[in-house]
Amino acid sequence: MAKPNDKLSAEDRLIARFFQPLATHPGALGLSDDAAFIAPPAGCDLVLKTDAIIGGVHFFAEDSAREVARKALRVNLSDLAAKGATPLGFLLSLALPKEIGDDWLGAFADGLHADAVEFGCPLFGGDTDRTPGPVTISIAMFGSVPQGSMVRRAGAKPGDRVFVSGTIGDASLGLALRKGADWKLSAAQRQHLAARYLLPQPRNALAEAVRTHASAAMDVSDGLAGDLAKLCRVSGMASEIAVAQVPLSDAARAVIAAAPAMLETALTGGDDYEVLCTVPPAKAASFRAAAQAVNVPVSEIGVIVEGEGARFVGADGQALAFKRASFSHF
Amino acid sequence: MAKPNDKLSAEDRLIARFFQPLATHPGALGLSDDAAFIAPPAGCDLVLKTDAIIGGVHFFAEDSAREVARKALRVNLSDLAAKGATPLGFLLSLALPKEIGDDWLGAFADGLHADAVEFGCPLFGGDTDRTPGPVTISIAMFGSVPQGSMVRRAGAKPGDRVFVSGTIGDASLGLALRKGADWKLSAAQRQHLAARYLLPQPRNALAEAVRTHASAAMDVSDGLAGDLAKLCRVSGMASEIAVAQVPLSDAARAVIAAAPAMLETALTGGDDYEVLCTVPPAKAASFRAAAQAVNVPVSEIGVIVEGEGARFVGADGQALAFKRASFSHF
Repeated sequence: MAKPNDKLSAEDRLIARFFQPLATHPGALGLSDDAAFIAPPAGCDLVLKTDAIIGGVHFFAEDSAREVARKALRVNLSDLAAKGATPLGFLLSLALPKEIGDDWLGAFADGLHADAVEFGCPLFGGDTDRTPGPVTISIAMFGSVPQGSMVRRAGAKPGDRVFVSGTIGDASLGLALRKGADWKLSAAQRQHLAARYLLPQPRNALAEAVRTHASAAMDVSDGLAGDLAKLCRVSGMASEIAVAQVPLSDAARAVIAAAPAMLETALTGGDDYEVLCTVPPAKAASFRAAAQAVNVPVSEIGVIVEGEGARFVGADGQALAFKRASFSHF
Repeated sequence: MAKPNDKLSAEDRLIARFFQPLATHPGALGLSDDAAFIAPPAGCDLVLKTDAIIGGVHFFAEDSAREVARKALRVNLSDLAAKGATPLGFLLSLALPKEIGDDWLGAFADGLHADAVEFGCPLFGGDTDRTPGPVTISIAMFGSVPQGSMVRRAGAKPGDRVFVSGTIGDASLGLALRKGADWKLSAAQRQHLAARYLLPQPRNALAEAVRTHASAAMDVSDGLAGDLAKLCRVSGMASEIAVAQVPLSDAARAVIAAAPAMLETALTGGDDYEVLCTVPPAKAASFRAAAQAVNVPVSEIGVIVEGEGARFVGADGQALAFKRASFSHF
């Protein structure tokens, strides 16, 4: 009697070996089903986000698979943080060229696992295909917020203070370094900028403070200037930013001291993955305290005003004119 | 005063022009935010699924963008149908080579819109990137079932009847036609098979009948023989299928009459997107009636038994031996 059909396919084996250990939620059914299920937390809205990263576009082909996996997850986690949401889990859609083998996949799954645990965000399901193109990793992430409390881009009001977390521009300067720029930095400075490009540090620890204080928020992924302009546009507002107040790392300051034109790269380049939010003045002190309590540095960089556009004012009182406000693929 | 940052980027314009009309749910915020939200239906579990299709792998580069969009959505809708779930919405991650222009995108969005309306499944958000590879469309879909009622692959019991919807093998024969096979079919027969490959007809109308009758279910996407073997494996069961009972279209019958070896292609080829389910004998008549009430043909093709493997028995009483039980990318 022939029973050729009871064998595991190569794809099933790949899933069982590399991805099943990440599917810790009972509703993921150990990835043995076509779909997964989850009982949404009572009284909550689900927050939904998808973002993809592509080899040769969002990361270098030679980047370690472990860091690539973590970057794919973290660019989505960063959005949830800015929306004030708690991660619940994710779906993974993976397209792999044929030269990708078990070594790469093992490191990829290992990185994904580490961050799934760190951020409390298990794998619920996925899809794996061969592609004639580059590695393409698409993640759909879902989180939760108390009903009606997702923080939106729209909502900034005149007088609200503009805050950003962490430091701005490190990743875009790290990318420029990677492409061959040389500013006579120390090894530690080079390392700092390169690491900030390679692996985002999403501010999920700040999510609750954002949710309970911010009138509007988004994560900075396509450059501070362009992203703030988007927030202002959907809020029907303008903003006035003091460039001197924008938080820069020591490494970024060293770059700009050596090459002043790189200030524009820092303010308009992508991949910061910091939280940008507006906070009513009466809540600003409480927001600072809440951020400090979770060890996330935040800086007040300006104010929301009536009008249109995001104006970055230099030490000389003049607004900066940027060649390109933000990163766009199109 | 320079205000270069208040302009819409090309990517924002693309989203506003092509995809905003699909984002009809208020929680999608007109695609003007980084994330979307939805209040899950009370007393329900969410059902989560992701599946991608890639140009040159799952569809031909010359296929119409309208049908490609609908296929991308429908392969996910088919999984929800087999799990007994009602669609709620989807996220779209789109990677586009640079030669894709507005004509293609307009047709793509048009097809997606048509099916989002037909299946009650609005767009909640997305991500659009350039890729040096082929068009890659990844969809993450979410639906709902009454709590605890998602129909799983595991659950088939000895004596349960095995049912499939519609007809089996049309799409794989349609693909063979597309690749140059010639079986002296009528134009109508060729058209039938080609259409079944090009555009799945997911059985979402059958979802409630599956949910209220089936002990186990999945959609047939990688070939009936291999998919049934998977269902049997996770259920810890075997099945005995009468090949003569497997529903075939007139066109598929004509192909197999001309080329008997194509029976294996029909039973093991992919892209059927029909529902495969097991139903306890006491519920079989009610399941048939419920399927008839929603105008979805279903056929009883065999029975679940103790053991391992899915056995396909021919008219001569002998089990068929397949060279390859199902489609796998790896």
